[in-house]
Amino acid sequence: MMELQGIGIGQGVAIGRVLRMPEPLPEPADTRSTLDPAAELARATASMHTVAEDLEARGVRAGGTAQEVLEAQAMMAEDPTLVEEVTARLHKHQTAERAVFEAFAAFRDQLLAMGGYLGERAADLDDVAQRVISDLGGFPAPGVPDPAEPFVLVARDLAPADTALLNLEKVLGLITIDGGPTSHTAILAREKSIVAIVGTHAALQLADGDEVIIDAANGIVLVAPTDKQLAEARARILARAARALAPIGPGALKDGTRVPLLANLGSADGAAKAVALGAEGVGLFRTEFLFLDSTSAPTVTQQREQYERMLREFPGQKVVVRALDAGADKPLAFLNDADEENPALGLRGLRALRASEDILREQLTALAEADAATEADLWVMAPMVSTVEETHYFTDLAHELGLQTAGVMIEVPSAALMANLILEYADFASIGTNDLTQYTLAADRMLGSVAGFQDPWHPAVLRLVGEVGAAGRAHNKPVGVCGEAAADPLLAVVLVGLGATTLSMSASALADVRASLADFTLEQARHLAEVALKADGAASARAAATAIAHSYTSTTGGTAPTVLTTPERGIQK
Amino acid sequence: MMELQGIGIGQGVAIGRVLRMPEPLPEPADTRSTLDPAAELARATASMHTVAEDLEARGVRAGGTAQEVLEAQAMMAEDPTLVEEVTARLHKHQTAERAVFEAFAAFRDQLLAMGGYLGERAADLDDVAQRVISDLGGFPAPGVPDPAEPFVLVARDLAPADTALLNLEKVLGLITIDGGPTSHTAILAREKSIVAIVGTHAALQLADGDEVIIDAANGIVLVAPTDKQLAEARARILARAARALAPIGPGALKDGTRVPLLANLGSADGAAKAVALGAEGVGLFRTEFLFLDSTSAPTVTQQREQYERMLREFPGQKVVVRALDAGADKPLAFLNDADEENPALGLRGLRALRASEDILREQLTALAEADAATEADLWVMAPMVSTVEETHYFTDLAHELGLQTAGVMIEVPSAALMANLILEYADFASIGTNDLTQYTLAADRMLGSVAGFQDPWHPAVLRLVGEVGAAGRAHNKPVGVCGEAAADPLLAVVLVGLGATTLSMSASALADVRASLADFTLEQARHLAEVALKADGAASARAAATAIAHSYTSTTGGTAPTVLTTPERGIQK
Repeated sequence: MMELQGIGIGQGVAIGRVLRMPEPLPEPADTRSTLDPAAELARATASMHTVAEDLEARGVRAGGTAQEVLEAQAMMAEDPTLVEEVTARLHKHQTAERAVFEAFAAFRDQLLAMGGYLGERAADLDDVAQRVISDLGGFPAPGVPDPAEPFVLVARDLAPADTALLNLEKVLGLITIDGGPTSHTAILAREKSIVAIVGTHAALQLADGDEVIIDAANGIVLVAPTDKQLAEARARILARAARALAPIGPGALKDGTRVPLLANLGSADGAAKAVALGAEGVGLFRTEFLFLDSTSAPTVTQQREQYERMLREFPGQKVVVRALDAGADKPLAFLNDADEENPALGLRGLRALRASEDILREQLTALAEADAATEADLWVMAPMVSTVEETHYFTDLAHELGLQTAGVMIEVPSAALMANLILEYADFASIGTNDLTQYTLAADRMLGSVAGFQDPWHPAVLRLVGEVGAAGRAHNKPVGVCGEAAADPLLAVVLVGLGATTLSMSASALADVRASLADFTLEQARHLAEVALKADGAASARAAATAIAHSYTSTTGGTAPTVLTTPERGIQK
Repeated sequence: MMELQGIGIGQGVAIGRVLRMPEPLPEPADTRSTLDPAAELARATASMHTVAEDLEARGVRAGGTAQEVLEAQAMMAEDPTLVEEVTARLHKHQTAERAVFEAFAAFRDQLLAMGGYLGERAADLDDVAQRVISDLGGFPAPGVPDPAEPFVLVARDLAPADTALLNLEKVLGLITIDGGPTSHTAILAREKSIVAIVGTHAALQLADGDEVIIDAANGIVLVAPTDKQLAEARARILARAARALAPIGPGALKDGTRVPLLANLGSADGAAKAVALGAEGVGLFRTEFLFLDSTSAPTVTQQREQYERMLREFPGQKVVVRALDAGADKPLAFLNDADEENPALGLRGLRALRASEDILREQLTALAEADAATEADLWVMAPMVSTVEETHYFTDLAHELGLQTAGVMIEVPSAALMANLILEYADFASIGTNDLTQYTLAADRMLGSVAGFQDPWHPAVLRLVGEVGAAGRAHNKPVGVCGEAAADPLLAVVLVGLGATTLSMSASALADVRASLADFTLEQARHLAEVALKADGAASARAAATAIAHSYTSTTGGTAPTVLTTPERGIQK
């Protein structure tokens, strides 16, 4: 038996046997070909064509945006410039493998140098090159394995193209070696409710066929588990399944204090699923999807249709829509400056909207029109507000354009510190814990080397949340939390103890959080918060809160503890 | 009379007549040349040659790094590829002006696309193109004017090449239209004690010969001032000169409370000047200069020599040395990852040192050896500390390697919020207000479009400073401030009111701050801090503190007010 530490995503438990993503082939040696160039060229073009056809076929099977990605890769595989480059190298008597390797690598470097969108395509090009070289030598193609039996996938990290092709019915769980809690893979795992642990450096030692238990709540992988551990894990899987099937009531603490549980949505498509999982409304409706594929903003009419479609799913319920949050990791050419040295600290969110006020006015107008045409309780909020003055600007404009309820996101430390004056003016606040953690610890949440700082349990972050909670109480205004922190069942209790009045999360996390809230009274939640605030770091805050939570659930004889095995999460250096 | 608002750098006042940097020529029209291609080519090559020779000559006059920049530009002016590109366009019957414009622009765009160091050379190339086109038409060359009489320079912004050539004896003051308080121009103005106002958008309307008063303390430019205003300005210039000449005592409040005033130094070279201006030690000795020109870290011996040289200037006085702060705007190839998306939120400061602990150990060893060999009171501190755990790591290591006094910089919001636990362990704290403001407001301090957020008067920043001050009092540990905030005479008083026990600044700011501190008691400083903390933004905090300060200095009948005319600073959008 062996235990590996990583960063668990969600609360799931899974049992299964490991299959590793094939490692990339080694670099082909630069030896003189024993064939003549024409023969090598025939080999190369045949493999390039095979790969292109395979990618195209996989695209058709996958459909949707995955198909676009795969079709673009299929075109790369037979790109005439690349064929030319390969041919030139074959005439210098390189092997087809080496010629493909070098030609693709040179083009990849050019893409990387260009940066931005094109730079990000470099990984796709690498993948194509790997496929061609594998085909030349008759090796298995790289990428997600697709065996007959369900399996636990172990990978260094997953590329978007891999995840698009993941057969979710076969994947019992996911372990990555790299990646942090906000990596692409982590986001996918949350969205699709895949039991996952990321950043598990020690997973390098796992071999195909190893039996493992993935315990996401505790951030550990148990290798070659004992019978007792297997039995416990099976019991937890059943208990969790039972919770998910339990009748869905509104979110509330043990003492009956209501804590509405809302869903984070990225488009109208997820609305029905969220409702089915018991979302009592939408706490964060991201509007970026309307803008991402465009070279200019969509029209008021186009926007209104989308907003109406989503609002109709939630008659009589609260729906909080965030104004376009462009910039940082979501740049839009018509709003953002691509040359910012630190886009996360740049002209993003409300700052960018204010610099292009027409776009903001049009969005708010479309929202006001959709609101008038539907029965939901529409709230709007501005992203990336850092000052009281910006609060005045946004809420005044929203009210002027006919929206009743206008608030701000609190994701910048200064906004949290000024919450008392901000909530004097704004109708509500919603705390974005991902960005708030990033700025409070000054650590890029997308950067693996500083992923260890990205932990919303850090007492400095909790203090800022508490500031906003206190301001909400003082002004009797709602304070929501819509970052991933709200999806951590025990942290959710702490957030309520700090003054959050609603929690919003991926719909897949609702059941666990609902069950956890029901285990504690408001007084207990406040005590948990106090204990966490006094800790000297994220790990000790989590440990202290977990210990107290245990003592509550084991002495009160109430509901069985649901999430109380969460020990310190391994800090990534 | 007219008043323009900008961001004042320092406290100076200047009177003079405007000279504008020539605006770039308009784009040459794409008309068919009336000359034959050979004649146009003769014109083009002659001008390119003239410009190359001129740049070379200017390089020789300037010397140093400026010479390198100018020689690189001279080579661009006659670059064979560019000559070829120009020639090809002349054969299509373009004018020499248009051909030069297009050929240089195409090359500029290529550089920009490459990004990084090459991308930054794009501005140099533009400058060369402008010079060639100006020479072709017989227009004055762009760049810093060099008239016989002293003048006030008005420019959009200054390029490094411009500032290197600035004749400081002729420049009475500096007004820029773009740029923020931490722009290249602002840093230069502070270093060279040039009276300057940056980010003065309305300065576009100034014309050559306009008489202006630059009032940096108040961030305003008075155009066509009245006789009364001129007389007042002259009186202030004289009073400031008198203050600078006044006998230098130790820094203290009016009630005798000592506030040691220390200097920020970037190398041992500035030590003698700092001592002459009354620095009571060094509050921030930056060690980057030892590493910047190297491809690897300097040896222990090389470092020790430099540290000894500086420590010998301050026998018996405190010298606070900051461990290497690489990353963000100061990347080092052997320590930092060039691919970080947001280097300001990346593996910088202590994080980078910890990942390459040998470099940190060698630096601390060299410092301990230099300490043993000299009489100064050496303190060391770590940059970019964000957690209690990092505090333990650094101070333990420094003590282990023989350094008596080890502390941390507080420049990340989480560190300020955890100051109570940090100062339980560290021997002292030093607040870096520039980065602390950047992270608290989540606004890149080097980025013009968000420069309006970069104001340490913001109450959120002051609250964090107050947290550290309170922690210092609770543990009876020193708390210094070493960001630019300490150089603002009234803000310096507020910082002391918030609990700062020492202030460190550019040596040129010492006299103004010393005079300002002498105007207030500790009780008054605390009241000023309280008032500023209650404000709803940076501008109103400054205004409220200024009003209260006025009331103190006008009713107590004490020293004449020195800095009390500071009204709201214009917020840059």
